[in-house]
Amino acid sequence: MRLFQTESSDWSEKVTPRSHVAAKYILLLYLGLTGIGALVLWLAGMTPFEAVNHAMSLISTGGFSTSDASLGHWTQPAIHWVAVAIMILGSLPFTLYVATLRGNRRALIKDHQVRGFIGFLLVTSLAVGTWLCFHSDYGWWDAFRIVAVNVTSVVTTTGIAVGDYTLWGSFAVLLFFYLTFVGGCSGSTAGGLKIFRFQVAAALLVSSLKQLIHPRAVIQKKYNGHPIDEEIVRSLLTFSFFFTITIAAIALGLALIGLDWTTALSGAATAVCNVGPGLGTIIGPAGNFSSLPDAAKWLLTVGMLLGRLEILTVLVLVTPVFWRY
Amino acid sequence: MRLFQTESSDWSEKVTPRSHVAAKYILLLYLGLTGIGALVLWLAGMTPFEAVNHAMSLISTGGFSTSDASLGHWTQPAIHWVAVAIMILGSLPFTLYVATLRGNRRALIKDHQVRGFIGFLLVTSLAVGTWLCFHSDYGWWDAFRIVAVNVTSVVTTTGIAVGDYTLWGSFAVLLFFYLTFVGGCSGSTAGGLKIFRFQVAAALLVSSLKQLIHPRAVIQKKYNGHPIDEEIVRSLLTFSFFFTITIAAIALGLALIGLDWTTALSGAATAVCNVGPGLGTIIGPAGNFSSLPDAAKWLLTVGMLLGRLEILTVLVLVTPVFWRY
Repeated sequence: MRLFQTESSDWSEKVTPRSHVAAKYILLLYLGLTGIGALVLWLAGMTPFEAVNHAMSLISTGGFSTSDASLGHWTQPAIHWVAVAIMILGSLPFTLYVATLRGNRRALIKDHQVRGFIGFLLVTSLAVGTWLCFHSDYGWWDAFRIVAVNVTSVVTTTGIAVGDYTLWGSFAVLLFFYLTFVGGCSGSTAGGLKIFRFQVAAALLVSSLKQLIHPRAVIQKKYNGHPIDEEIVRSLLTFSFFFTITIAAIALGLALIGLDWTTALSGAATAVCNVGPGLGTIIGPAGNFSSLPDAAKWLLTVGMLLGRLEILTVLVLVTPVFWRY
Repeated sequence: MRLFQTESSDWSEKVTPRSHVAAKYILLLYLGLTGIGALVLWLAGMTPFEAVNHAMSLISTGGFSTSDASLGHWTQPAIHWVAVAIMILGSLPFTLYVATLRGNRRALIKDHQVRGFIGFLLVTSLAVGTWLCFHSDYGWWDAFRIVAVNVTSVVTTTGIAVGDYTLWGSFAVLLFFYLTFVGGCSGSTAGGLKIFRFQVAAALLVSSLKQLIHPRAVIQKKYNGHPIDEEIVRSLLTFSFFFTITIAAIALGLALIGLDWTTALSGAATAVCNVGPGLGTIIGPAGNFSSLPDAAKWLLTVGMLLGRLEILTVLVLVTPVFWRY
């Protein structure tokens, strides 16, 4: 599956041990991180039962909670910050944890994807937190915390929520719609388009601008120390194109079933990106999908599977060429 | 400007005369098509004044009308069909008209972009027309005609309208939102992402699927008889990426100014793609932009310029590298 080499192995090829050893490491790491997460959530004020459930739900960027109000049920700031930390841990490339454990101490810190991901979360949370502070009764720290939980939740495709951010106005609604697409790092438990695709596209954009100014210059196109070759550019374009038309088609199907266009478009996006909450009064962060017609639920199920199974792999099954042999 | 060779010259390189001769041909063609358009619109029932104005507005895919109700003011089906024909003529590659005039009689018919464009308009209009026939009081022919005018108008980025398609329900709303992005052919008067970008992306998607099934096969990637090389793939990715983030940023700015998210997102898209009508009660096909705050109008103006000036060329002006020399 050459098309997906970029997905997890390419960028960290040199620091990754052989796959069966890596699998063992990743399993132990996953259990370890879940255990530590549960412990810290318990210390922060959850009951042991709540702590274990939330640790499992957050490290897997799954998003279920033991409360209908999701994480908004707990008012302790410590719990919210611990949740942010666990979601981030679940969204980093697991191969780089393995590399770190095996002695490459700077593997995580040096990685462009990890830096870009954490930088993006930080800048977005600070900017939107400050904006919310001016547009609500929250103090700056409370606004920053509430925004950080919700932004991290949507970007990491977890889907837990503290309060209903769709009530903050159209700026917040649109922003959270965009964040739905971002996703975590490749090789993590997160879904979405993944941070590295945006970084590679941005790197290509910058090099194209340089080329426009200096048409004869030979401009290097690199990401994370590796040259961006034709294979990567093509797979990036193909994946993003198919990701977009899948969401567009599912949204159109949902609209045909009778859903309003906000619910249809945000529902399709949140399903394919595996985030959870959509927008609008029905499937927003304070609502749920239970009232949708059965046909819509089936369509969203297909969307979730397509998004989770790296989309193209599934599409192969419906091509005539596949069945010819 | 290597990045934009694909835009007009690459696909039709072999049939294009030298640029100063081509410019003369294109000018005469443009005047000729406008004249014929005015004549036929007049014969179809418009006054000479209306006919001349609409011919100029349609061939340039501009979209202004002498009536506030746009083309809906005229009830004659013939006028609507003539308008569809003129919009399509304005959205075909002008270099191929020149090639046709210079003796390559099959230049237009053989072109993949032209075929894809007209095929897309036909299939979309037939499908949505049939859908509208079942979901309204229109007979099939009337439904097909009204849909054909509106679909052609949005896809060719003209922006005239017959009736308010946003009243047809969320399926139509979402569909017309998608159509906003499609655009006409490269080398035409139309804006948008342009049909050939979708065709190249689709061709790459198909070849990727084949490669997934036969990992060792050498699969040719061609469009319109030319190989799709790295340069084309990269410029396609870069352009689409920047197009998307431009619309996203302008929409976010509009939301910050206070516009609801439907108006903000569809307004940004319709401005950058140079279409005209957006969605929602304010800027929908039956509304207009006059009630928006001044700041929003400035932002949309920037969007229209960026979309019309092939976006990256403008971005170069704000890069530090450009000013270093």
